[in-house]
Amino acid sequence: MTQHDAVEVIIAKRDGGELSDGQIDWVIDAYTKGVVADEQMASLAMAILLNGMNRREIARWTEAMIASGERMDFSGLSRPTADKHSTGGVGDKITLPLAPLVAACGVAVPQLSGRGLGHTGGTLDKLESIPGWRAALSNTEMFDQLESVGAVICAAGDQLAPADKKLYALRDVTGTVEAIPLIASSIMSKKIAEGTGALVLDVKVGTGAFMKDVARARELAETMVALGKDAGVHTVALLTDMSTPLGLAAGNAVEVAESVEVLSGGGPADVVELTLALAREMLAGAGRDAVDPADRLADGSAMDVWKAMIRAQDGDPDAALPVARESHVVTAPSTGVLTRLDAMAVGLAAWRLGAGRARKEDPVQAGAGVVWHARPGDQVREGEPLFTLLSDDETRFTRALASLQGGYDIGAPGTTYEPGALVIDRVS
Amino acid sequence: MTQHDAVEVIIAKRDGGELSDGQIDWVIDAYTKGVVADEQMASLAMAILLNGMNRREIARWTEAMIASGERMDFSGLSRPTADKHSTGGVGDKITLPLAPLVAACGVAVPQLSGRGLGHTGGTLDKLESIPGWRAALSNTEMFDQLESVGAVICAAGDQLAPADKKLYALRDVTGTVEAIPLIASSIMSKKIAEGTGALVLDVKVGTGAFMKDVARARELAETMVALGKDAGVHTVALLTDMSTPLGLAAGNAVEVAESVEVLSGGGPADVVELTLALAREMLAGAGRDAVDPADRLADGSAMDVWKAMIRAQDGDPDAALPVARESHVVTAPSTGVLTRLDAMAVGLAAWRLGAGRARKEDPVQAGAGVVWHARPGDQVREGEPLFTLLSDDETRFTRALASLQGGYDIGAPGTTYEPGALVIDRVS
Repeated sequence: MTQHDAVEVIIAKRDGGELSDGQIDWVIDAYTKGVVADEQMASLAMAILLNGMNRREIARWTEAMIASGERMDFSGLSRPTADKHSTGGVGDKITLPLAPLVAACGVAVPQLSGRGLGHTGGTLDKLESIPGWRAALSNTEMFDQLESVGAVICAAGDQLAPADKKLYALRDVTGTVEAIPLIASSIMSKKIAEGTGALVLDVKVGTGAFMKDVARARELAETMVALGKDAGVHTVALLTDMSTPLGLAAGNAVEVAESVEVLSGGGPADVVELTLALAREMLAGAGRDAVDPADRLADGSAMDVWKAMIRAQDGDPDAALPVARESHVVTAPSTGVLTRLDAMAVGLAAWRLGAGRARKEDPVQAGAGVVWHARPGDQVREGEPLFTLLSDDETRFTRALASLQGGYDIGAPGTTYEPGALVIDRVS
Repeated sequence: MTQHDAVEVIIAKRDGGELSDGQIDWVIDAYTKGVVADEQMASLAMAILLNGMNRREIARWTEAMIASGERMDFSGLSRPTADKHSTGGVGDKITLPLAPLVAACGVAVPQLSGRGLGHTGGTLDKLESIPGWRAALSNTEMFDQLESVGAVICAAGDQLAPADKKLYALRDVTGTVEAIPLIASSIMSKKIAEGTGALVLDVKVGTGAFMKDVARARELAETMVALGKDAGVHTVALLTDMSTPLGLAAGNAVEVAESVEVLSGGGPADVVELTLALAREMLAGAGRDAVDPADRLADGSAMDVWKAMIRAQDGDPDAALPVARESHVVTAPSTGVLTRLDAMAVGLAAWRLGAGRARKEDPVQAGAGVVWHARPGDQVREGEPLFTLLSDDETRFTRALASLQGGYDIGAPGTTYEPGALVIDRVS
C-alpha cells in the first residue's frame, strides 16, 4: 500500500477534491491501526460531511472498511441467505418477527445486530430481556444455527469491519453522524462483510428517524443500493414512515411481547404490514418469491422458528418477560380523535425511562418503555389511559412526561384522519 | 459558565449557524481542561474552516483564549510598549534588529516568540545559535529586562493563552491551520494577553507565506486589526511581499549574522527597509513618532541595545557563531539577470538542510541554512556561486537541491527587472 500522510488526505477533501483509491485505502488502514489519530479522522469526517464524496469514493471507502476485518461466507449453507437493515426507528421491533418468518419460508437470515444508542432502540437490547438469551455467538455457532434453525440474531464480532466500529464511535462524539457517505458506507460495509446474498434496507423517514425528509432518505437509499449491487449483493430499499412510532410499544420486553403477538397471528396492523412487506422483498431477493409469508404467520411455523431461534441462544421463549417495578398512566386530556403521535417524543420518553442508553457503557432496563393505547385515527376519551410509562425508577417519570408534552394532538370528535402510507417508496 | 455539550456546539457550526458567546466560552474552557476531547475540537475546527465565523464570534473566541491563561501587564514600566508579529516568512529575521532598534528609540519591546515549524524559521531557534543565550525567562526577569534594557525576545510561558497552545498543535496535525478566524484569534490572543500597548502586524503575502494571495492576506489583516482595536491595543498591519525571501540568508546563525550587519549600519537593503518601516509603525503606535529610527541604526545605539539584550539572557554577542560542518555551492547555469527567486523553494531547502523541524520535538541545526549570492535584479555569471548550502549532514544536500530546482529564473543579459513593492499595503 502506498504511504500517504493524514494531513495531505484531510486537505485534499477539505479543499473540495476527490480522494484517490490509494488515499482511501491508506487512511482507513492507518486509522484502524492507530497510525492516523482520532483527531485526524474527526477532521476528515467533518470535511467529508461538508464537502461530500462521489460514488467511486464511497464505494472504495466501503471496500476499505470491509478489508479492515474478516469477511464471512455462507455459500456453504443449504439455503440462500437474506438480511434486513433498518436505519433505526421508534418501536421498530420488526427484526424480531421478520427473521424467523423469513427462515420459515426457506431463506436463512444471518442478522448481525447492534445495541441502541440514543432514542432508537437496539435489537440486541430487546432480545436480552428474554431470560437466558445471549447475543454473543462464535462464527461456528452462527453457521450451525443458520443451518439447523434458519435464523440467527446475534452481536457482530470484533473482526467484522473493525474500521467501521472505530469510526462509528468517533462520529458519535464529533457531530459527524449525519453524513450520507459515512452512513451508507458504515451500514453497507457491515452487511457486505457479513456475507448475506440478498439485502433489504428499511430506510426510515420522519421525526423519529435520522433522515427527517424524503429527499435525503432517498439519497441514502440510492447510495446504499448502488454499493450493494457493486458488491454483488441483491439489494433493495424501502422508504418507510417514521413520523409515527411502530405498533403500540417502545422499549425492550414490551417490544418482544408485541413481536410474539405478531408471530401468534395477531399484533398491531402496521407492524404486521411492514413485517410482511420486508419479508416479501427478502424472499424475492433470495429467489423464493413463490412463498407467501402471511401463510407462515397464520400456520404457526414462523412462531416455531422463533422459539427454536431463542432456545438455540440459551433463551427461554416461554418464560415470563421482565416487568418494570413502577408505572405511570397518562390519561387523555379530552375526548376526540388522536390525529398525531410523534415518534421522536415517544422515543425520547422511552429512552428517558431507561429503555435506552446515553453512553455505550450504560446498562438498559429490560422492563422500561412506553405503551400507547391509541394510534393516530383511533378514538380517545377524556380521562381514559393514553400512555403507560414503565420504569424501574420512578424519578424518571418527570423527564419522560416532559418529552411527551406536545408530542400528540387530539382532534374534536368526528375529525377525519387520513393515514399516510407506511411504505413511502421502493428503491432498487 | 453555562454548561454546553461538545456535539451541540459542533453541530451548530457544522450546520452554518453562529456560535453564541456562551458556547464559545464553554468550548474553549472545556477544551483547555480536557473535557472537550481533541477529536471534538478537530471536528469543530474543520467546521469553522469551511463555514467561517463572523466578527463577533472571532472576537469572543479570542477573548476566551486569553481568559484560558494569565494576562501580562506592563503598565508599570517607565516607557510605552510596542510589539511586532510576522505571520511567517523565509529569511524573516526582522525581529532581531527591530526589537533593539525600537528600544533604542525609547519604546519597550516585550516580544514573546515561538519556534519554527515547517519552512518558515522561528525567532527563538535563530537566537539560540548565539552561544549561551537562553529563551526561557520568568515574568520577573522579563519585566526587569524591559525596564533596564528596553527589549526582550523570549519564549511565551505556558500560562499565556494555553488554549491557543493546545489548539495550535491540534490544527497542525488536522489540516485546519489555514482558517482565517483561527489564525487571527491565535495570533491576537497571544499578543493581547502579552499586554503590549501597540502592535504592528507584518502579514506576509506570496509563495513563501501562508497567505498566497493579497485578498486573503488583507482579510486576515483586517480581522486582526479589528480584534486589536476591540481589545484596546493600537494595531496596524503592513502587507509585505514574501514571494522573494528576505535578505541574503535563511537559517539560524546565518540570519543572526545578517541581523548584526543591519545593526552595524549595513545589511541587505530590503531587510533595512522593512526593519525601518516596521519600527516607524511601532513608534507611531506608541506615540513616539518624533524619533527617526534610521538615526539609531547609524549612531550604533541600536547595536548597544542588541548587545545588552543578548547579555541579559546569558548570551555572548561577541562570540563566534556556529558554522555548519559541510557546505555545497550551486553555481549559476548561465550568465544574465536573476529575475525570480522563489521564497518557498529557498525556505524548503533551508528546512531540509536542518534549519527547521518537521515535528516540534525535533532539534534544529544552528549552522544549517541557505545563503544566496544574488537577489532578483542582480547580474549573475555562469559558473559563479549562486547559492551556498550549509548543513552538518552532507546527505541532506540532495533533497535541498531538489527543492531549489525551478525555484529561480535567470534572464538573458540586459533583461530589465521591475522590482515589486516590499510593503504592498497598510491596514489600520
